[in-house]
Amino acid sequence: MPLRFAEPAPEAYQFPLTIRHLLDSAMMTAPDQEIVYRDQSSYTYREFFGRIGRLASLLEGVGAEQGMTVAVMDWDSHRYLEAYFAVPMMGSVLMMVNVRLPPPQVAYTLNHARAEILLVHRDFFPLVEAILPSLPHVKAVIAIMDGTEGALPSYATGEYEALSAAASPDYPFEDFDENAVATTFYTTGTTGNPKGVTFTHRQLVLHTLVANGPGGGSKAAPGFGYGDVYMPLTPMFHVHAWGVPYIATMLGLKQVYPGRYEPDLLCRLATDHKVTYSHCVPTILQMIFQAADQTGKDLTGWKLTIGGSAMSKALCSEARRRGMEVLSGYGMSETCPMVSMARPDAGETDEDRIVAQLTTSGVTVPLVTAQIVDDAMNVLPRDGKARGELVLRAPWLTPCYTGDAKASETLWHGGWLHTQDIATIDPDGTITIRDRLKDVIKTGGEWIDSIHLEELVATAEGVAEASVVAIPDAKWGERPLAVVVPKPGATITLDALNAPVEAAIAEGAITRYARLERFEIVAQLPRTSVGKIDKKAMRASYAEAPQAAVA
Amino acid sequence: MPLRFAEPAPEAYQFPLTIRHLLDSAMMTAPDQEIVYRDQSSYTYREFFGRIGRLASLLEGVGAEQGMTVAVMDWDSHRYLEAYFAVPMMGSVLMMVNVRLPPPQVAYTLNHARAEILLVHRDFFPLVEAILPSLPHVKAVIAIMDGTEGALPSYATGEYEALSAAASPDYPFEDFDENAVATTFYTTGTTGNPKGVTFTHRQLVLHTLVANGPGGGSKAAPGFGYGDVYMPLTPMFHVHAWGVPYIATMLGLKQVYPGRYEPDLLCRLATDHKVTYSHCVPTILQMIFQAADQTGKDLTGWKLTIGGSAMSKALCSEARRRGMEVLSGYGMSETCPMVSMARPDAGETDEDRIVAQLTTSGVTVPLVTAQIVDDAMNVLPRDGKARGELVLRAPWLTPCYTGDAKASETLWHGGWLHTQDIATIDPDGTITIRDRLKDVIKTGGEWIDSIHLEELVATAEGVAEASVVAIPDAKWGERPLAVVVPKPGATITLDALNAPVEAAIAEGAITRYARLERFEIVAQLPRTSVGKIDKKAMRASYAEAPQAAVA
Repeated sequence: MPLRFAEPAPEAYQFPLTIRHLLDSAMMTAPDQEIVYRDQSSYTYREFFGRIGRLASLLEGVGAEQGMTVAVMDWDSHRYLEAYFAVPMMGSVLMMVNVRLPPPQVAYTLNHARAEILLVHRDFFPLVEAILPSLPHVKAVIAIMDGTEGALPSYATGEYEALSAAASPDYPFEDFDENAVATTFYTTGTTGNPKGVTFTHRQLVLHTLVANGPGGGSKAAPGFGYGDVYMPLTPMFHVHAWGVPYIATMLGLKQVYPGRYEPDLLCRLATDHKVTYSHCVPTILQMIFQAADQTGKDLTGWKLTIGGSAMSKALCSEARRRGMEVLSGYGMSETCPMVSMARPDAGETDEDRIVAQLTTSGVTVPLVTAQIVDDAMNVLPRDGKARGELVLRAPWLTPCYTGDAKASETLWHGGWLHTQDIATIDPDGTITIRDRLKDVIKTGGEWIDSIHLEELVATAEGVAEASVVAIPDAKWGERPLAVVVPKPGATITLDALNAPVEAAIAEGAITRYARLERFEIVAQLPRTSVGKIDKKAMRASYAEAPQAAVA
Repeated sequence: MPLRFAEPAPEAYQFPLTIRHLLDSAMMTAPDQEIVYRDQSSYTYREFFGRIGRLASLLEGVGAEQGMTVAVMDWDSHRYLEAYFAVPMMGSVLMMVNVRLPPPQVAYTLNHARAEILLVHRDFFPLVEAILPSLPHVKAVIAIMDGTEGALPSYATGEYEALSAAASPDYPFEDFDENAVATTFYTTGTTGNPKGVTFTHRQLVLHTLVANGPGGGSKAAPGFGYGDVYMPLTPMFHVHAWGVPYIATMLGLKQVYPGRYEPDLLCRLATDHKVTYSHCVPTILQMIFQAADQTGKDLTGWKLTIGGSAMSKALCSEARRRGMEVLSGYGMSETCPMVSMARPDAGETDEDRIVAQLTTSGVTVPLVTAQIVDDAMNVLPRDGKARGELVLRAPWLTPCYTGDAKASETLWHGGWLHTQDIATIDPDGTITIRDRLKDVIKTGGEWIDSIHLEELVATAEGVAEASVVAIPDAKWGERPLAVVVPKPGATITLDALNAPVEAAIAEGAITRYARLERFEIVAQLPRTSVGKIDKKAMRASYAEAPQAAVA
């Protein structure tokens, strides 16, 4: 027999999983709840809903249409949150611009995504000014003056608040195909240009529903839910700020958007608004510790999800000593991002074991299947010993790299998304990342292309051959280390190695985070059996101390 | 411009929202977790997954196909849970048979759903024996002997455990259209035969994800999550046991299935397995109190969601006094069922206000929109005063009453699902059910058709005219009250009124819960302005005490 299908009543409502519907219950239950921006302003959800309509109206006024890319360059703000909703809800595509990329790469990503409308915070006017001549598709730039009175740049179509105030809050949002693309952003890999990933309405709604899941049963890893006050500490241009702004809004929680991150202000906002939940990379957590020490901020009861790079056991213990409730998660740009979360055993009381559990990559959340495979896609055992590439299935994985058929095929080879991370999986499902296939350095939440960096270093005076690897760093997660074979008789200095790097930073060809602090001299670079430079061996040799899993 | 769609990589995995995928993370994370059946047996999830495969294999062996209805008549058991998964996962339709209906109505529902395979617990052999001659579609009956050794009935194809043991655990479950029907069951309304509702794979997955949502932030209404131990106290044939078996399995929780409800055993199981979460109608909660008093069971920390009918403030206070964490929810057969949940303000400390909040119908969960409307579908204000019919949109509402186009049209008139409940909505979204359009009496979780009952009463000796209304009852939620106009000079007795009711019970034409305990004599029945019998007025007159919202 064929599958059975119901015959819906003629007027039965067909419910699409579109981002618009994430607001359904918040509209009913949280009209008077507050959304705060820095120490500058706050408004109610009622006003927020109106401003979503206003943003859509003003964007339509400057030419936005369904299917068009609208790009945002802003710090974490209520405006960004408005764009998270308004842009996809009108059927356009929200592009979250990584403003930390070198300007030519920012331009590359805007052009590749065919961004036609830009929303730009005044801090990024110099960046936009520099690249605007190379952005042929852009037809409108909305300036975000952020409370200041200065003149608009000549290329600006108008100012966000002024245009918003003049626009109608009653934009006629409608239902449409849940498989339409809602968001796009770019991820920097080992080689070549940044790659575009996309997520559909359906994917983001499902991600929101699952990432909203429980944890409430475990004292060691309490849930995020009603009554919490949320402040993001992962930039909103990084993988949807891990999807949490969508969850917090769906739940109608009080939200605090901190603008540009300033450790003292973060602590003050956390205190003033009784923030209970945030998420960040380890580097930010360390900054919070420092700021708390300086300001006397009590961190007790602040729940933090840590991702982006490894949370060391020392960092985890320090956070717990200060009364914070931390746990680590694993995900990547290609995965929306949520894949797995640490989940301590409910009954566990041994602090060392709790910390050990909290600092793994955790276990998969609902609807996610993870496997480890060998090169031939054979599934390896979940015995805590076998190492293989971590591959994934979930409803919210990017279906491709935009416009890059070859990379897309590689990404989805064999019907599973390839993370390029090497992992073990315990019998209880705990995933531990052991190594990675791609040679990229994650520092303070930013990625440095090690191939590019070693090409630069190789041109430095006195260098015969060079390689760059990531080494664990207590503050930044990872930092680059140059491993150098000198020319005969040459003396290598850090300044000499950094000379070509500094030049590239000045040109905007590489991020300033690439500047080296450390190098090692060797007689020859280690090689694998097939003659490739053995980065894995170098990473092992030069890591300063054993570290927890790199998530 | 058209909406934008991505071009998926050729091998990108298209993830359907099918029930099979609810097992994805549990398979990774909970292989050694336990599922318990009464004080009889327990097994691991690993075995459970194998038994899902075995059940599918054995069903295929007796002729099950995609699209075919497989009906279950069992108490709450691990077997029922296996059927919750195996039947939909193989593309068949799981019918949850309401075994409390009168036998002719059970037969009606099985025939209407074209059930071809029955799984029947031995307690229901007499029922099946009585109706089997009137079930032309049935081609196989699997007997559930539940550990006893007796002979199989002659009509049985085989015994569940024996067939399961002989079947292969490796059934090749495959992905298919998420909009295929997964489950069906029947709801008894005011008039006519029971009506069939259906839910698709997509609907059940979405319901599971949302019902799995948080609450963890509120001390007064803690979440259900990892670390909890689950025991259903709503029958699994009632609206998917409110969907919780799907959630508990997705999360890989320890689960305890109590079989036929016996208050002492429920308390013992709760103690032995440290049950932390259940859900039930108020009547069951009262039974638990009694059993706890008799056995000395400490109820502290047991979280309970109450629905099906009103939780009175007195009952709520009593539960809290005993250390239970209770809250009420609202839903119905047509809604899968979750619509709304009580949600006390996180900061509320006043016990009276907490109890008042916990006993409303609460606020809508994510993706649900509720409105109150007048007869012309005009939306009424959410001011806590205006009363209108509660109408709903959500992704998991039944699209129709199976095979009943007229009732389906009425259900979905104007593009909203009509609950036939009259409600107010507060500005903060709190829904309070005030009355209802449909004249049905909910008693101990069962429904009595008041129209049918009053037709019976009207035939009693000495009765000129009669109406039957629901009145609140502390133990049963509601009980029927007959309002009677005697014939001139006639004396009315309870026995006389019950005589035709008893006859109908004996015939299986109406449930035994319809037997009357109370009646009122009036000179004439109250009428509305258009001459209809005013049941609303009678309910108001004869309610013994003011009650909280009837959910």
